[in-house]
Amino acid sequence: MARWEPNTRERLVLAALDLFIENGYDNTTVAQIAERTGLTKTTFFRHFPDKREVLFAGQESQGRLLADGIAAAPAHATPLEAVAAGLDAVTGSFTPEQRGFAPRIQAVIAGHPELRERSAFKHTGLGEAMAEALRARGVPEPAATLAADLGVRAFHRSFDRWIDPPNSTPLPDLAREELRLLHTTATTLA
Amino acid sequence: MARWEPNTRERLVLAALDLFIENGYDNTTVAQIAERTGLTKTTFFRHFPDKREVLFAGQESQGRLLADGIAAAPAHATPLEAVAAGLDAVTGSFTPEQRGFAPRIQAVIAGHPELRERSAFKHTGLGEAMAEALRARGVPEPAATLAADLGVRAFHRSFDRWIDPPNSTPLPDLAREELRLLHTTATTLA
Repeated sequence: MARWEPNTRERLVLAALDLFIENGYDNTTVAQIAERTGLTKTTFFRHFPDKREVLFAGQESQGRLLADGIAAAPAHATPLEAVAAGLDAVTGSFTPEQRGFAPRIQAVIAGHPELRERSAFKHTGLGEAMAEALRARGVPEPAATLAADLGVRAFHRSFDRWIDPPNSTPLPDLAREELRLLHTTATTLA
Repeated sequence: MARWEPNTRERLVLAALDLFIENGYDNTTVAQIAERTGLTKTTFFRHFPDKREVLFAGQESQGRLLADGIAAAPAHATPLEAVAAGLDAVTGSFTPEQRGFAPRIQAVIAGHPELRERSAFKHTGLGEAMAEALRARGVPEPAATLAADLGVRAFHRSFDRWIDPPNSTPLPDLAREELRLLHTTATTLA
């Protein structure tokens, strides 16, 4: 039986999302999530510090992948090419399971002010991770922050396109396309 | 006596900031803020919904000023010129008192993760107010969001320069200068 069951972490995410949508985020307890999966609260807390982090897990690793990708870009890369390398690294890490969960995660966050606040903070954190990695390459301010802002926008725009059911383009391709579009647009605002 | 006393709202802000810095944000109660000012808790709650909003008050009016300034820009204005008009409207509204409070407000926020989260959300909210006002003028996406992003960055960068004690340049001038610098920089990232 166990062989074809999704792994523990994925079962917890699935159960949590179902409960958040059925009963509301505030009305869902970790005990209920554990019960729904047939696992214990202790198991839940081995994977997530609290129920909120079911929705935001992976943020730190995303920031790290972006920063590592930027650091590993060729020495002669422009700020935007370095951001593209960061986007390659992070967008290549997403799984089909994450694509499947994403619309439900977004729906839960959209319906709850505290979660929208957390989401804005995550957004800011990814931008800061990218700007920091760019500065470490010698990109001065404000270029580092602006290139990072374009990177965050490209990440979110490509992610939204990727999880749209009719889409069949890989996420890394969408991210590079969005980054190019955003930069072209930024040059034509005045 | 009462003639030279600062107004009630300002007295509450001053007392709250002193207490946040002396005793920590978490350890400060509304009752203590009221006591320090010689006012009642009821008076506090006529000015602020909770102690957190002492730090973030004015956010809604800032978003409204930005949006109204953008809406009132000439019909032929470029997206960036419309953002500059929004910045004129909001930066012209700041008082010398706000300049005086700002470093202490920033210090309290910087020392507290929940407040940094709230601050990121405010940042996002101002950008959304600007992007919405630009779309209402017919600016398409992603130009509206990108112009708004530059506007938020220009607002914060100019504000930080304005509250720096040696500065004597008016905030609206700094904001326009920052917006120009940011746009020029954005065109040279690739």
